[in-house]
Amino acid sequence: MLAEIITIGDEILIGQIVDTNSAWMAKQLNLCGIKVKQITSVSDDAEHIVEALNAARKRANVILITGGLGPTKDDITKITLSRYFNMPLKRDEETLKTVEGIFARLNRPMIELNRKQADVPEGCTVIQNKNGTAPCMWFEDQGAIFVSMPGVPFEMMYLMEEEILPRLKERFQLPFIYHKTILTANIGESFLATLIEDLENSLPESIKLAYLPNLGQVRLRLSASGSDEQQLKTEVDHYATLLMERISQYVVADEDITLEKALLNLMESRQLTLSTAESCTGGYIAHLITQHPGSSKVYEGGAVTYSYALKEAVLGVKPETLQNFGAVSEETVKEMALGALARFKTDFAVAVSGIAGPDGGTPEKPVGTVWIAVASASGVTAKVFLFGNRRVQNISRSAAAALNMVLAQVKLAEAK
Amino acid sequence: MLAEIITIGDEILIGQIVDTNSAWMAKQLNLCGIKVKQITSVSDDAEHIVEALNAARKRANVILITGGLGPTKDDITKITLSRYFNMPLKRDEETLKTVEGIFARLNRPMIELNRKQADVPEGCTVIQNKNGTAPCMWFEDQGAIFVSMPGVPFEMMYLMEEEILPRLKERFQLPFIYHKTILTANIGESFLATLIEDLENSLPESIKLAYLPNLGQVRLRLSASGSDEQQLKTEVDHYATLLMERISQYVVADEDITLEKALLNLMESRQLTLSTAESCTGGYIAHLITQHPGSSKVYEGGAVTYSYALKEAVLGVKPETLQNFGAVSEETVKEMALGALARFKTDFAVAVSGIAGPDGGTPEKPVGTVWIAVASASGVTAKVFLFGNRRVQNISRSAAAALNMVLAQVKLAEAK
Repeated sequence: MLAEIITIGDEILIGQIVDTNSAWMAKQLNLCGIKVKQITSVSDDAEHIVEALNAARKRANVILITGGLGPTKDDITKITLSRYFNMPLKRDEETLKTVEGIFARLNRPMIELNRKQADVPEGCTVIQNKNGTAPCMWFEDQGAIFVSMPGVPFEMMYLMEEEILPRLKERFQLPFIYHKTILTANIGESFLATLIEDLENSLPESIKLAYLPNLGQVRLRLSASGSDEQQLKTEVDHYATLLMERISQYVVADEDITLEKALLNLMESRQLTLSTAESCTGGYIAHLITQHPGSSKVYEGGAVTYSYALKEAVLGVKPETLQNFGAVSEETVKEMALGALARFKTDFAVAVSGIAGPDGGTPEKPVGTVWIAVASASGVTAKVFLFGNRRVQNISRSAAAALNMVLAQVKLAEAK
Repeated sequence: MLAEIITIGDEILIGQIVDTNSAWMAKQLNLCGIKVKQITSVSDDAEHIVEALNAARKRANVILITGGLGPTKDDITKITLSRYFNMPLKRDEETLKTVEGIFARLNRPMIELNRKQADVPEGCTVIQNKNGTAPCMWFEDQGAIFVSMPGVPFEMMYLMEEEILPRLKERFQLPFIYHKTILTANIGESFLATLIEDLENSLPESIKLAYLPNLGQVRLRLSASGSDEQQLKTEVDHYATLLMERISQYVVADEDITLEKALLNLMESRQLTLSTAESCTGGYIAHLITQHPGSSKVYEGGAVTYSYALKEAVLGVKPETLQNFGAVSEETVKEMALGALARFKTDFAVAVSGIAGPDGGTPEKPVGTVWIAVASASGVTAKVFLFGNRRVQNISRSAAAALNMVLAQVKLAEAK
């Protein structure tokens, strides 16, 4: 059972937005046992949309389409599908009610452009969209299923979860796809590959191993598909266990989670609390942590201290430390971490101070210089890093390094 | 001049990573006058890669390929290209030196897998990758150009900026593509469309108007391409000015920037400073702001106060306020904003307290309830929002609403 995803919109082709929908959809489809063969992004151009539809149906059974369903003139997905399937547009009363209901709830007046959202190709199955005015449309044509959804992420997500996936599961006898991911840190992918070479070579044909490196971490992913869920899991898990035994000192998690989630899980299981004191990462570490449900069990909060004044007032960094050593120094970052530990009363505190760039570098402290400190009851340790000259990447890499350092210190405390 | 982007990697097709490379590449190509016709993501499968290459060369002159160049077995892009162009792999001495140099710099031992990175299809142009071990390869075949780059974002970005784009610009007489974006806030796209309907209808064929809605904002984008840069700009800017005059009260910026960047620009021009006090957004507002170079001119810092204790200790929220009204209340969020204003000594302070979910909701305060307050010398105002039940989206929507509120208050102060 193969699916393809087609995302429609000029904004994708000119790089104005990042297509996050496709990854989310692909993940959900995989969990249901549907493999995604290709993801294609095309512009709001009728001829090209038709070309993409024709190509996709040759490769896949289900074609999921997002985007191009807005009420404005640049959006042409609906009229293109109407012509493609030879189904003229007709106003759908139920859809009109849904659209009217949305405007009533928002207490907004309605205009003809909004009413036109209720025009749908006659003969398609309309799936009501509770979160927006663009209806979801399900077409069947010569054995292939085409579903057109709005591109607004939360509207698409709701429709996929509540409507599309349940219908696909009911309709097809789906195979089981199983992925097992091992998250490792502090080892490069080629070293990892060398360490596990014999195990990799011994994998049966049906199990695929992938290396996914990212910011000081490498994910190892074992994948297999089949009809017997239990057998599949047993077999894949068997090899996963062998791999994890071999590289145990680098394993951070035995599931596909982020580094910060692995840290949260570990700290929660030890009933440890954490606070943050961020300068150059500007709240990014706090954000990474707090995007996870339940993070409040571990994370108490923190400070984003961009200015000297806030480093002193909120974290208690001594003015003379800042004056003598500068904000980006071992001395300052240690005081930041110890200040957070004492004032926010947590078991661990992590502090980051660096030059994210593009300005602010000096010959001694070039852009990309980042000091990170971790404090706990057993003291404070600091390390300096030299990243590159891209601000957004320096922020990401600093955050990953900081999380890695906390993880190492928590593990160390545990070992004692 | 048309380009296509092909991203290769199972991790994309199973939704393990979001393809952010394509949007970045598309943006850079557009700035050089190269339109992107299609973006295609395929798995690490030789046959499918070849199919994608064949399809792309029919539509475009330049095909940019990322991914699948790692040293491990799952990566097959290089060997597939070697076969596709009928160019056997051969060890390249210069590439080997680059790879050795990288290992020397990192002070890491090298293994045969790493040396194999220096094997390249004989006859292609190798472009040295200073940031990683996977070389960039440039192929020319029957009038089409194919460039294979590593998928690691900063390696790809460096290669695109320093090598690929300059070569394409030198090689081709590129047309000029001009986009003009107007950022609006606090108005829906259909109302915007009605307000500007006559202007939209009067646009010449050569100028395209797109509506890009996102989190309480709508971007209007005018696009045109041609050979006379000056004439193009004059014409597009003329219509942009007409549009902005018509909808002036909703215009936040006359360029393609984010809401927080528009706010930073406005505040910097007024020499105003800002601090944040975040609970449910957990540092996300601080992160949005601080990812922009120069944000320190406006942003002093802030607090992420997840726990009651930190709300009291860092922001001075009264224990009885928390006890009587709860953390998610008008009273608490106002005290948070006023506390940040006084303690962080800024001209404006914004505070957010809400229930991001998935847990923590009650019948009176369901998940998605978010209080936001903005404080300044002229007082404090607060508003309550009811977003949905998805944590990550509640965080984004809360941040957008908070930035919108600050923007409105700064504009109000300005008007006085």
